[in-house]
Amino acid sequence: VNFADRLAESVARKGSTLCVGLDPRIELLPPELVAGLKPGRAGRARAYERFCEGLIDAVADEAVAVKPQVAFFEALGGYGLTALERVCAVAAERGLLVIADAKRGDIRATAEAYAEAWLAPRDGGRPVADALTVNPYMGGDSMQPFLNACGQGAGLFVLARTSNPGAADLQEAMLADGRPLWERTAELIAERGSGLIGESGLSSVGAVVGATNPEAVERARELMPAQVLLLPGVGAQGGSASDLSAAFRDHPAGGLVVAARSVIYAWRERRGDWQQSVRAAAAELRQATPTAL
Amino acid sequence: VNFADRLAESVARKGSTLCVGLDPRIELLPPELVAGLKPGRAGRARAYERFCEGLIDAVADEAVAVKPQVAFFEALGGYGLTALERVCAVAAERGLLVIADAKRGDIRATAEAYAEAWLAPRDGGRPVADALTVNPYMGGDSMQPFLNACGQGAGLFVLARTSNPGAADLQEAMLADGRPLWERTAELIAERGSGLIGESGLSSVGAVVGATNPEAVERARELMPAQVLLLPGVGAQGGSASDLSAAFRDHPAGGLVVAARSVIYAWRERRGDWQQSVRAAAAELRQATPTAL
Repeated sequence: VNFADRLAESVARKGSTLCVGLDPRIELLPPELVAGLKPGRAGRARAYERFCEGLIDAVADEAVAVKPQVAFFEALGGYGLTALERVCAVAAERGLLVIADAKRGDIRATAEAYAEAWLAPRDGGRPVADALTVNPYMGGDSMQPFLNACGQGAGLFVLARTSNPGAADLQEAMLADGRPLWERTAELIAERGSGLIGESGLSSVGAVVGATNPEAVERARELMPAQVLLLPGVGAQGGSASDLSAAFRDHPAGGLVVAARSVIYAWRERRGDWQQSVRAAAAELRQATPTAL
Repeated sequence: VNFADRLAESVARKGSTLCVGLDPRIELLPPELVAGLKPGRAGRARAYERFCEGLIDAVADEAVAVKPQVAFFEALGGYGLTALERVCAVAAERGLLVIADAKRGDIRATAEAYAEAWLAPRDGGRPVADALTVNPYMGGDSMQPFLNACGQGAGLFVLARTSNPGAADLQEAMLADGRPLWERTAELIAERGSGLIGESGLSSVGAVVGATNPEAVERARELMPAQVLLLPGVGAQGGSASDLSAAFRDHPAGGLVVAARSVIYAWRERRGDWQQSVRAAAAELRQATPTAL
């Protein structure tokens, strides 16, 4: 089934467009998950796995997707990648879509290998992730192996306009036609995604647009009418869910509001059980997202 | 020691600027390395490890560096990443610099985690790799954690102008000042790398410029005088080592000529022992590179 259609169905059923970022960092984990672990990478990977499984359990009814940040697992080498695979499987079992935030980008056989790593059925079963984030710098042909995977049910989120200050360096570089570079990226995404639009009217090829810049979200919606916009930067980075209504103007599943730190580390500022705090923060954010309103 | 200085010393000692790409693909491996292996990802990872260790043994006297393509290992999950770590350790033991071709790119804590994964000392020992390829789309701040690692002896190669046709889509997008976008990337690389120039006069922050486009190599040399240019695309992709002299104009270690398929699968078109064929292909290419001439 088309990824965008699966996402749209889940958004409709849950009344949520919340995507929770799984960004485990050893120095921020609940102490009870770290106590007694073996030192070194194997123990750290085990702690990340327990933390993420606890997060999935806490947010499963509030969110439609989780977005594990691959870098934090990759820092633990083979131990980390194996733990991440288990976390993704647990999320899928709990009915959450899994967006692997890897920002991969390469060409030909190399891009095919990345698509195989994340989006191809693994050992006759399901893929590690439902969707993957990718970087467009190498151009349209670098997207092709991932687009092929989208034809088999996978999803893609291509970086368009990111939420960091450095986005000004290249993404906002002014082109000869008077537009910033990222608008050309957006057109490339819309063009390449046009053949992968499902019954929902949405494409399996979405775009990453920073939630800290509501004007960019508005412009992205114009340039990419069929794209699901993955909107990171809500909460700790300063973006506000209520500023993102443009993303949802044409479709209730037109965007995914991503929060990581403000949800997964909510228990650091609240009292009581860490999972209860995470669940409460996720529920509050879900209520603040445009589709829920 | 500064990465560029280590590279320059190795180039001078070996009289070579050859970098061999380690791109293992199961369907292309020598049959004797595949025979008798367990099916599945564990067996494939073992075959990749044996192949790459054989390649390292064959090219150790001809090349100054190897460039493992992370994607092919990542496709095998935790098994693959563990095999890659072993391959990198073997290359380092044989005196080869290791450039992990991962094309990572992200911001803040996430970029720090990628830098930790590849460039930080592992378990009190050496890092997995000496240098890493990164993608500049997210801008200068996305490079910062990697630049910090360069201050500790690591190297970086930032994508500037790649060798694929799709490079035209964004890298060649014409800016309002009449130059293609990748030239702005080049300036960003030169600027961020200016604080990391070693005694050799070269910076630890290099750039990836496709060898299939000699005009771009010439222009890259002008815009990035202190950068080591990583030049993929020689051989199977159509680039010729003799066209790359601009890279080496100012310094014998001003470029690294990257060949993968034409060297590591040379035995598929030659007779006899596969490692002997690889060694012969590497020796021929080394002789054709400008520094050797």
